[in-house]
Amino acid sequence: MSNPLRVTVWGEFRHEKKNPKVSAIYPDGMHECIAAFLRKDPALTVRTAWLDQPEHGLTDAVLAGTDVLLWWGHMAHGDVQDAIVAKVRARVLEGMGLIALHSAHYAKIFKALLGTTCSLKWREATDKERLWNVLPSHPITQGIGEYFEIPAEEMYGEPFGIPTPDELIFISWFTGGEVFRSGATWQRGHGKVFYFRPGHETYPTYHLPDVQKVISNAVHWARPMVNIPDVCPNSPALEPLPEDAEASQRSTEGHK
Amino acid sequence: MSNPLRVTVWGEFRHEKKNPKVSAIYPDGMHECIAAFLRKDPALTVRTAWLDQPEHGLTDAVLAGTDVLLWWGHMAHGDVQDAIVAKVRARVLEGMGLIALHSAHYAKIFKALLGTTCSLKWREATDKERLWNVLPSHPITQGIGEYFEIPAEEMYGEPFGIPTPDELIFISWFTGGEVFRSGATWQRGHGKVFYFRPGHETYPTYHLPDVQKVISNAVHWARPMVNIPDVCPNSPALEPLPEDAEASQRSTEGHK
Amino acid sequence: MSNPLRVTVWGEFRHEKKNPKVSAIYPDGMHECIAAFLRKDPALTVRTAWLDQPEHGLTDAVLAGTDVLLWWGHMAHGDVQDAIVAKVRARVLEGMGLIALHSAHYAKIFKALLGTTCSLKWREATDKERLWNVLPSHPITQGIGEYFEIPAEEMYGEPFGIPTPDELIFISWFTGGEVFRSGATWQRGHGKVFYFRPGHETYPTYHLPDVQKVISNAVHWARPMVNIPDVCPNSPALEPLPEDAEASQRSTEGHK
Amino acid sequence: MSNPLRVTVWGEFRHEKKNPKVSAIYPDGMHECIAAFLRKDPALTVRTAWLDQPEHGLTDAVLAGTDVLLWWGHMAHGDVQDAIVAKVRARVLEGMGLIALHSAHYAKIFKALLGTTCSLKWREATDKERLWNVLPSHPITQGIGEYFEIPAEEMYGEPFGIPTPDELIFISWFTGGEVFRSGATWQRGHGKVFYFRPGHETYPTYHLPDVQKVISNAVHWARPMVNIPDVCPNSPALEPLPEDAEASQRSTEGHK
Repeated sequence: MSNPLRVTVWGEFRHEKKNPKVSAIYPDGMHECIAAFLRKDPALTVRTAWLDQPEHGLTDAVLAGTDVLLWWGHMAHGDVQDAIVAKVRARVLEGMGLIALHSAHYAKIFKALLGTTCSLKWREATDKERLWNVLPSHPITQGIGEYFEIPAEEMYGEPFGIPTPDELIFISWFTGGEVFRSGATWQRGHGKVFYFRPGHETYPTYHLPDVQKVISNAVHWARPMVNIPDVCPNSPALEPLPEDAEASQRSTEGHK
Repeated sequence: MSNPLRVTVWGEFRHEKKNPKVSAIYPDGMHECIAAFLRKDPALTVRTAWLDQPEHGLTDAVLAGTDVLLWWGHMAHGDVQDAIVAKVRARVLEGMGLIALHSAHYAKIFKALLGTTCSLKWREATDKERLWNVLPSHPITQGIGEYFEIPAEEMYGEPFGIPTPDELIFISWFTGGEVFRSGATWQRGHGKVFYFRPGHETYPTYHLPDVQKVISNAVHWARPMVNIPDVCPNSPALEPLPEDAEASQRSTEGHK
Repeated sequence: MSNPLRVTVWGEFRHEKKNPKVSAIYPDGMHECIAAFLRKDPALTVRTAWLDQPEHGLTDAVLAGTDVLLWWGHMAHGDVQDAIVAKVRARVLEGMGLIALHSAHYAKIFKALLGTTCSLKWREATDKERLWNVLPSHPITQGIGEYFEIPAEEMYGEPFGIPTPDELIFISWFTGGEVFRSGATWQRGHGKVFYFRPGHETYPTYHLPDVQKVISNAVHWARPMVNIPDVCPNSPALEPLPEDAEASQRSTEGHK
Repeated sequence: MSNPLRVTVWGEFRHEKKNPKVSAIYPDGMHECIAAFLRKDPALTVRTAWLDQPEHGLTDAVLAGTDVLLWWGHMAHGDVQDAIVAKVRARVLEGMGLIALHSAHYAKIFKALLGTTCSLKWREATDKERLWNVLPSHPITQGIGEYFEIPAEEMYGEPFGIPTPDELIFISWFTGGEVFRSGATWQRGHGKVFYFRPGHETYPTYHLPDVQKVISNAVHWARPMVNIPDVCPNSPALEPLPEDAEASQRSTEGHK
């Protein structure tokens, strides 16, 4: 437990290059803003990766050296290669933590792990968002009060096409009349997955202290406990089996 | 509720053609054996489909006309086209029920909906399996006693690489010393999914009354309540929003 | 399934006698209002019971003849006898359905089954409540749209001191800025439990069609599948046990 | 996190006084055996308490100074005072961890928190128990292999009358043909609850290294994150409410 936790912040990093409003808020990209506040924690070593790098910056070496992966994507989900998604998925199932941020509800990796549409209602307007803390004993909500507010955000509304979360952490209230399950966790294989709603690119959401606190907490919470590769073994019996003359004639076709 | 429930039994239908032991037990194929006992229920209309048909027998018309799909596959999971899997997945998320049988734990459609490895231990030997009914109030276990036995079956053992089930229905005991979550349900989108462990091709498992009862019950349980296509709508506010001069300048990039 | 479902609507029936505002809305009591709309369903036989009857109207015969019990209480939770609560609890665990309405979040029977504080925030003011349907495939939400509104209701806000629901059905939005898990289910023993938030006595909530639809659906959903009394049996082995010379000397103290 | 975790091991401590077989295995009582191996961990401060002490050793001061409580009881569940149970329950709901051992499935405190019968099958014979680790990524199973065995134990069999666990950790296989959910967790209020099956008084179960490892892990896992007393506050609105001339006439009866 004394080794630093190895964190990779993945960003799509395209809005920041084409939309001056976004680059004004996040001059080095959203991923670098997130990495910067995580780097203040001496228990973490933090790197970044983004879509337009070779292999999207997620080489085998990077993935093998990542304990917790944060993912922000939006306009270019379709540009993420399926082969890379498969590798990331395998790493989560082995034990790596995954934190999916905002529009990553539609990221290939998030949908591949949850299995559902992950669809929702949305509106870009002038809503205020108030996130109610419904699980104050959870590691992710330590240091967060009964609720916190984001002065302006994109609205995401129910129904949210997810499997029932293992833990429901936040429920959002929006000025325009909607609600949303804004923080939720799922175990997938040996890895922990956390979805956290806020973070539309045209708002300074990732500069907010409460948002940073939640993400920092979540990184620690998602720490791998194990690293267990996938196997499907033919296993000898542990107790005596009945004799069966036919047994030796049985098919021995491989399990797959 | 008065219309018949439209059931499609999908079988790989290959073991039966190459392994005389299997064809002796299931001369018309495993799918036809399952369809035959389901057809005794006048509330069901039952058809079959199999791997080597065009589009695996799962054309758009067949899928649109299916309320509950049963799936048995084993040696040829890899031969199922991804495009067909995507269509079946979309139908489940809209509301169609899915019953995954035995080695369908490794079917593409099952893994796509659950998101995990779905791996397990296994052994082809002379184990007896005893399935304990841990949820006697569930529709799937009506008419089933505290447990039922299968004299000889392939062993599947824990750990089983699945997300925590919504409902755990059966736990199996095996002679050789293993246990297994042999009946489990998950809601995925608007559809119900049931996994039922027994059914290795070299044993006459689908001829057993208790096994038939469970599958018949599950077909009724998996009946769709709705048929709701996937949407991700831009939604106008239901309550007055604060004024914001900047709002009209905002990006209107599409959500996907 | 052809026998009528036997429903008992239990009401505290005290506010109606002392508060003219309440009696103006519910001249025969809230329980009779609820019973009246349920009686329109020919598949139900509906009786009522209330606090100030002998045994609170919940004699052994009434409980034995009840398939689904609805419970509304508020100011007099403490007047409900513990012995009656124990009997109701035993019936739920055997299979009887329970629908807890509004301030029944603090009813002894609800707390006894859930095990937690069941506390919440509240405010009697002029809030509008909008209940979002987050599980449109559930039997309880059939006939309910994406949301429905109650023009004025007491506010209940998170955090709500409940165990994680098996199914989350509704999330409420309130004008004053709060959210609440307004419809949720739990399996307890062989019985189904549904909590439904709306129904403060000073508002005509139980006259609203959507509220009536939810409650009617819930009564059918809560139908018992079984009636299994509690036992904790000493069970003989089903498989041969190892010999053990000491076995006969072992303590045979009773399990309880 | 640097303060020692304050642990109280509660034992019934009666079998040990009347049954020489038990006192031979646990000369200082089962609670002292458990406390002894926990005391080897410098991060813990461990005390014991038992039934026949004043207030069962669980005074207000002891409870206020306990972070995690372990509970073993069997023949004398009925002798535990309801008032003490209520205090322990309140402490769990505030945040204290609770580890219920073996026949504590029938302890008043366990049943009060879970809400169900907690009944099961049982047999005192010569069964071997094999506990399969179905959640190897959980803090409670660190250092535990795929399974571990107990050479002789009382059998507990399904169905086990519990609510669906939040996490299923162990499933047991018994020689005699039964299975059991032997390790399971539930969140109750702000506290964590773990049930761990092994530990019949006539076997040296708590001397086994794997059993000690599981209990030690569980104590750390159950560490309180918060200490939040129960409240049910009247809460002012956070957003403007509509005006309502009738509002001032409304009932202001207290919420309870």
